[in-house]
Amino acid sequence: MFTSPLQLEGPSIADRDTLVKRESGVTLSSPMRLRMEAFVKAQQKEIVSTLEALDPSKQRFRVDTWTRPNGGGGISCVLQDGSVFEKAGVNTSIVYGTLPRPAIEKMRVNHKALDPDVENLEFFAAGLSCVLHPRNPNAPTVHFNYRYFETMDAEGNCNAWWFGGGTDLTPSYLFDEDAIHFHRTIKEACDKHDRGYYPRFKQWCDKYFYIPHRGESRGIGGIFFDDLDEEEKEQEQLFSFIKDCLTAFLPSYLPLIEKRRDMPFTEKEKEWQQLRRGRYVEFNLVHDRGTSFGLNTPGARVESILMSLPLTARWIYMHDADKGSREERLLKVLREPRDWV
Amino acid sequence: MFTSPLQLEGPSIADRDTLVKRESGVTLSSPMRLRMEAFVKAQQKEIVSTLEALDPSKQRFRVDTWTRPNGGGGISCVLQDGSVFEKAGVNTSIVYGTLPRPAIEKMRVNHKALDPDVENLEFFAAGLSCVLHPRNPNAPTVHFNYRYFETMDAEGNCNAWWFGGGTDLTPSYLFDEDAIHFHRTIKEACDKHDRGYYPRFKQWCDKYFYIPHRGESRGIGGIFFDDLDEEEKEQEQLFSFIKDCLTAFLPSYLPLIEKRRDMPFTEKEKEWQQLRRGRYVEFNLVHDRGTSFGLNTPGARVESILMSLPLTARWIYMHDADKGSREERLLKVLREPRDWV
Repeated sequence: MFTSPLQLEGPSIADRDTLVKRESGVTLSSPMRLRMEAFVKAQQKEIVSTLEALDPSKQRFRVDTWTRPNGGGGISCVLQDGSVFEKAGVNTSIVYGTLPRPAIEKMRVNHKALDPDVENLEFFAAGLSCVLHPRNPNAPTVHFNYRYFETMDAEGNCNAWWFGGGTDLTPSYLFDEDAIHFHRTIKEACDKHDRGYYPRFKQWCDKYFYIPHRGESRGIGGIFFDDLDEEEKEQEQLFSFIKDCLTAFLPSYLPLIEKRRDMPFTEKEKEWQQLRRGRYVEFNLVHDRGTSFGLNTPGARVESILMSLPLTARWIYMHDADKGSREERLLKVLREPRDWV
Repeated sequence: MFTSPLQLEGPSIADRDTLVKRESGVTLSSPMRLRMEAFVKAQQKEIVSTLEALDPSKQRFRVDTWTRPNGGGGISCVLQDGSVFEKAGVNTSIVYGTLPRPAIEKMRVNHKALDPDVENLEFFAAGLSCVLHPRNPNAPTVHFNYRYFETMDAEGNCNAWWFGGGTDLTPSYLFDEDAIHFHRTIKEACDKHDRGYYPRFKQWCDKYFYIPHRGESRGIGGIFFDDLDEEEKEQEQLFSFIKDCLTAFLPSYLPLIEKRRDMPFTEKEKEWQQLRRGRYVEFNLVHDRGTSFGLNTPGARVESILMSLPLTARWIYMHDADKGSREERLLKVLREPRDWV
């Protein structure tokens, strides 16, 4: 039998994981990375089909499945120019790779479990991201991202690991009842795990989604967290928390889009939405660490990273909201984040 | 007579310069900073009135004059939603300020004349920037920026100084004759001073206006340079070079906008222009050092910095240019910069 030099080195962790999945499937006793991967893929399917069902024009998501040369890959689902959403993206990405020493040293600040004495480390990352930009200016843009990261030894045994993620709402026009519903749904998911989570992660979110050069937040927040590892809680507990956050997404957002998608609106309101989309672009391109990390990763799939940008955006020099207007009311809240629950 | 504590410290350099300008005007023997300021302000007036004369709807530039608390200020001239230009900005900015030690150390890499033994240094900067985004997709976007920078002792005597700047053209549809005219006009301005300038600064421009995550240039280039000081040429010679670059702007661009402004175009061509505007936004927000320096400067006038963004932009997931189309032809040139003269 012919054996290639690569095969002599033994199968990669990604290859071994593929074999395990094919032969035994993913069960409760599978390694966390396989369980997280299976979970985000199942969630992606459910979210995509729920969003498709919203669209009376029956437009479907375009599905692109891509693989990475060193293992892993992703599924990008994007719906464009639909009747409910101008742009909707729901992406999973699974990455197997090698961390060089400087990256390990940087990560050790937050994760003492990382071995400081190695030149490089195998790592795995799995995540699900979603950004929805509705057509109707009364309906808010929403975003979430939940991810799992681990480092492994050469045999694929997990070394350090952590979870991160969050979700936030970006209305062009503020409906208090929507903001309250969104925050309350997230808070309930958090409270099941730790009463301290919601206040802590709500504050982290307000801090993260801030546009310093505008002196305003991107939207009305939600939750944001990163680096949740064994110093926070046990892995199973955190996975269960992440699962509850993710499954809270549809209940947190569906009632809002259903209520707002068919509201009448004026040209002026549409223009205001487009200006707010401009701010969204500013945050994502200037400040978002996820986007900038992605754009700086060699071989990254740029179209999947930038699916978060709106279909269209607008910049008007010296635009000013009228005194007492709905536009001014939103700006006030963006300049001074509020408690919603 | 009442004397305020501030007056006891003596007038600032900005105050003294204001007095000199009022009492004696700016002449050939004035310090370079006053001559550069006078020159860019005169150029701004001429460019603004020439561009206004282009617009049959007689729309005028909005003029905002602003001052900086520590001296200096600027004039922002912006025309929006005109019949020829969707957005046109022509800004001067004059800055008096103090450089902290880390900034001085960074600048010493390029300017040995900077005193390494001071805690801080007074500085002055004067510049003129312009970005024009035409309505017609056949007409190219154009940008230029020319600036002078100096450091001074407490009495206002110039210590180190340098010039920087450049201009570049960003067509949505490529007309070879336009690209050739633009580059030839700039080359002639350069050649009058140094036959080596155009090839050197053209290459610098191609390198600077590159969008790595897209693997393409923002446009078809022009010239770009920075840190031209006494190691390059004498101050008078460089000022004369900068003046020729600036006065070459209208001749380099006017024939193009006059030829293209009234060409018929399709909806599809307008959409392609909007996609290219999206790339312009990506370059300016992710890569442009000028923009990022501006946004990170406390107290900067954000509206003047971001006037460079187009009125509207578009992002389409996985957009592809048709084989053999005009769109594909542009992309080829953006991926492999060409020599135009």
